[in-house]
Amino acid sequence: MNTHVKDMPQTKAKSHFMKRAWYVAALSADVGPEALFHRRLLDIPVLLYRKQDGAPVALHDRCPHRFVQLSAGKRNGDDIVCPYHALEFNAAGKCTRSPHGTGAIPRAAQVRSFPLVEKHGFIWIWLADEEPDHSLLLDYGPLEAGPPTGVGYTYMYLKAHYEMIIDNVMDLSHVDHVHGEIITTRGQLSPLIPQLKEGDDTIGARWEWKQTPPIGILANFLPEPDVEARHFVEVNWSRPANIQLTIGATQDDVPLGLDHCVGQYDLHVTTPETETATHYWFATRRNHLEHDAEFNAFKIKAMHDAFVNEDFPLIEAAGQAMETSDFLSLNPVLISSDAAPVKVRRIVKKLIAEENAD
Amino acid sequence: MNTHVKDMPQTKAKSHFMKRAWYVAALSADVGPEALFHRRLLDIPVLLYRKQDGAPVALHDRCPHRFVQLSAGKRNGDDIVCPYHALEFNAAGKCTRSPHGTGAIPRAAQVRSFPLVEKHGFIWIWLADEEPDHSLLLDYGPLEAGPPTGVGYTYMYLKAHYEMIIDNVMDLSHVDHVHGEIITTRGQLSPLIPQLKEGDDTIGARWEWKQTPPIGILANFLPEPDVEARHFVEVNWSRPANIQLTIGATQDDVPLGLDHCVGQYDLHVTTPETETATHYWFATRRNHLEHDAEFNAFKIKAMHDAFVNEDFPLIEAAGQAMETSDFLSLNPVLISSDAAPVKVRRIVKKLIAEENAD
Amino acid sequence: MNTHVKDMPQTKAKSHFMKRAWYVAALSADVGPEALFHRRLLDIPVLLYRKQDGAPVALHDRCPHRFVQLSAGKRNGDDIVCPYHALEFNAAGKCTRSPHGTGAIPRAAQVRSFPLVEKHGFIWIWLADEEPDHSLLLDYGPLEAGPPTGVGYTYMYLKAHYEMIIDNVMDLSHVDHVHGEIITTRGQLSPLIPQLKEGDDTIGARWEWKQTPPIGILANFLPEPDVEARHFVEVNWSRPANIQLTIGATQDDVPLGLDHCVGQYDLHVTTPETETATHYWFATRRNHLEHDAEFNAFKIKAMHDAFVNEDFPLIEAAGQAMETSDFLSLNPVLISSDAAPVKVRRIVKKLIAEENAD
Repeated sequence: MNTHVKDMPQTKAKSHFMKRAWYVAALSADVGPEALFHRRLLDIPVLLYRKQDGAPVALHDRCPHRFVQLSAGKRNGDDIVCPYHALEFNAAGKCTRSPHGTGAIPRAAQVRSFPLVEKHGFIWIWLADEEPDHSLLLDYGPLEAGPPTGVGYTYMYLKAHYEMIIDNVMDLSHVDHVHGEIITTRGQLSPLIPQLKEGDDTIGARWEWKQTPPIGILANFLPEPDVEARHFVEVNWSRPANIQLTIGATQDDVPLGLDHCVGQYDLHVTTPETETATHYWFATRRNHLEHDAEFNAFKIKAMHDAFVNEDFPLIEAAGQAMETSDFLSLNPVLISSDAAPVKVRRIVKKLIAEENAD
Repeated sequence: MNTHVKDMPQTKAKSHFMKRAWYVAALSADVGPEALFHRRLLDIPVLLYRKQDGAPVALHDRCPHRFVQLSAGKRNGDDIVCPYHALEFNAAGKCTRSPHGTGAIPRAAQVRSFPLVEKHGFIWIWLADEEPDHSLLLDYGPLEAGPPTGVGYTYMYLKAHYEMIIDNVMDLSHVDHVHGEIITTRGQLSPLIPQLKEGDDTIGARWEWKQTPPIGILANFLPEPDVEARHFVEVNWSRPANIQLTIGATQDDVPLGLDHCVGQYDLHVTTPETETATHYWFATRRNHLEHDAEFNAFKIKAMHDAFVNEDFPLIEAAGQAMETSDFLSLNPVLISSDAAPVKVRRIVKKLIAEENAD
Repeated sequence: MNTHVKDMPQTKAKSHFMKRAWYVAALSADVGPEALFHRRLLDIPVLLYRKQDGAPVALHDRCPHRFVQLSAGKRNGDDIVCPYHALEFNAAGKCTRSPHGTGAIPRAAQVRSFPLVEKHGFIWIWLADEEPDHSLLLDYGPLEAGPPTGVGYTYMYLKAHYEMIIDNVMDLSHVDHVHGEIITTRGQLSPLIPQLKEGDDTIGARWEWKQTPPIGILANFLPEPDVEARHFVEVNWSRPANIQLTIGATQDDVPLGLDHCVGQYDLHVTTPETETATHYWFATRRNHLEHDAEFNAFKIKAMHDAFVNEDFPLIEAAGQAMETSDFLSLNPVLISSDAAPVKVRRIVKKLIAEENAD
């Protein structure tokens, strides 16, 4: 089923974005059963909706006749009717009805459809021209390992290049300076040189430290909230823009891992809307107080607000000051904590160059 | 009187717009006896005003001294006084007074004046460098054949290239899908292949059909408002952007023309403000209930609202999605009803190329 | 102390602005003892603040690490702490502390500092790469020769190229046409050909005339407010964008100068924010009613309002109509009163060309 490669010749131009990758298109919960959901991804207008059997569909959100967005149209079962001249398209993007003239359907009347996978509470989309490579969609199973009251998901939007977000999460040395009580390490993390883990197109960084009292998000779930605890945090980036973060703390003599510590398993994912704006999702599964719906709602809101109110103003200001998405071309002064984000930028650059070379 | 060719050397560059044509500058009623009326036409700032004898005047709305718009100035009889340094210009654009120094008037102190013709309730303007060709100003006499309570005029503005409007009116197959009861043909028009009429730089299209009940704008004026009627509609485009539309219906055995049917004689005209914004006027003369001022006001408002609320959002969205004014370069899928608008686009392209070649 | 030349390689590109000059950065009164004051000057983001001893400091408002503006950070004594990763910089722009890793400070961790001089109620800044040339900072001592209730300062901002302001002040022939009673010469000034004074990179213009009643701002301070008086006004431009204006009137047989007349000593200074926006300051010292604080406040407000409400709309409109900062390239029609501003434009052009040639 190669229908998704017929439309959009303009995307054959060299892209500033990596395309051979699975991007998040939306939270599963954000695309309701009846919705015609529009979102621009990698500068492509995309229509997301669900078939009557619930399966998600993604079409290029642009009628091939006069280029009106199909998301402004109506549903007819699993088909979409363009609001301007009522051409009708099925979930594969094929035109199935024209009320015009003899009703003949031009062979070219086809909108591009994009492969989707719904997994771990997200709808993932494949935007490259090539057939989708399912080996590139990683497993984030721990997000689903537990009750719904132990996991939170949130969507954020910011006016900055998506790599600025990757920089922010891959270099956690900012947390003591940008954030308040909620996630301060009380100055313990900044002086550490993180331990790097370089894989095949992946980069990890890990910090371990002690602090008193323990970090705000975990302290109350430790035996003695005011007493020193050992902590760890680990971030693992994989293409295109996914960072899995695990953080934990303990007051016992156990290995520093989520199996033994009070902690949480998080996912930060971004998808560029354009060169200067980014969709950003955060999901977090904790291993404590998992059955408290009220705390669950409070927790995800607090994290959302910390990102939006504390990180975003700085990231957006930096992006405006840079006036380019090519951070490294500006000869920044780099410090020890930049090792991980800079390595990620180099991989991203290499992967994009490889795509454009093909 | 060649004064209008002396100013504005920058307009000698190749233009994206057809210039050898009469464009509407304003409704006659919109330029009051005292007004200094500013409007940008084909990206040229234009000042419109009326001499004391009522004759309309158009000047380049830019003082040749320091480039302030003259429309921000004051009138001195038939002359205009610049608001910045009080240079004064007459209705031919000639500087007639300078309060500076010796009062000597530089020979170059001249603003371009544009030929105007006031006709059929519109002020028409000639923006080309060449002498105006009066044979290109067509006759829309039927608009004036009847009482003032039988004709309506309205002005609209939209953020889209003007050719998107021509496409919309030359392909009426959208009416069943975009508009409500007011002008639906109940699906009868879309399946028809319009009859085309190709002239010397003109394109016409005509549809004939039956529907029950008759079309909303005419049904109540037919003998039996709920019974089938024969209908016709005809659109005739002529340069630069004028479409004369006639629509009628009858329940008798008579020829399908306005002489014999209940119907109306309309004019759609557009003038580009810029590449991405358009002035749009609509005038309609009906041959029924011609003496009812209240209905007349209701009718023109209903038509105005249908265009603005139903067509414009789609047209503006399509224009944004296209990101170019060259529709055909995007390889659109074309359907039978596109024959007329595409032929118009080809003529427009040819005429602009001819102008730029000279 | 050459620290200000190490940062900002991008400023070595050819500039549209003159750089070897002292620009006003701010009014002394506008930079409080605790403030981190941000202003864009010649398209450079600048942080202004005062050391604990009151001395003003100017730093490039961009951390060299991740380019966040330092003005969003915090003070630590005379140092500034970046809000993102807490790098700390002293008043010379040198990084003095990094909380990251070993605390080692990269040699390149340096922001550019700009030489400042605080004088005559203004903070003057040197933005060129070369060592500051103090001979280029002129003396405006008369502003300070008298009580504080005899002098007013005001800041204005407009969306136009800064040379449009110079044009406006160097050609006073507009005052009769643009302004109301406050500074009209009752048509006496426009017919005069000003007397020019061309110096080494300076241009002066002087007008002398009689009017009845005397000019609005001075009439009430003359012996007979309704009787003819002799007037003079003189404007003197010097680089980069400073115009010293003196105006006076007398009803006695004395020389036309400020020593003998009722009048005022003014300074108009502008600094480009960008190519299309300008910071504009006006200061005025009068030699009458010098001890009336209430009149003093009224006077500066009236002048401020006259500029903002009467000049600015015309200047901004002209700038938009020009669509370029190169006024002379548009072949304007010039009149006698343009002699001074056109000569200034030619000097500015010459000086910029000289800088770019080096």
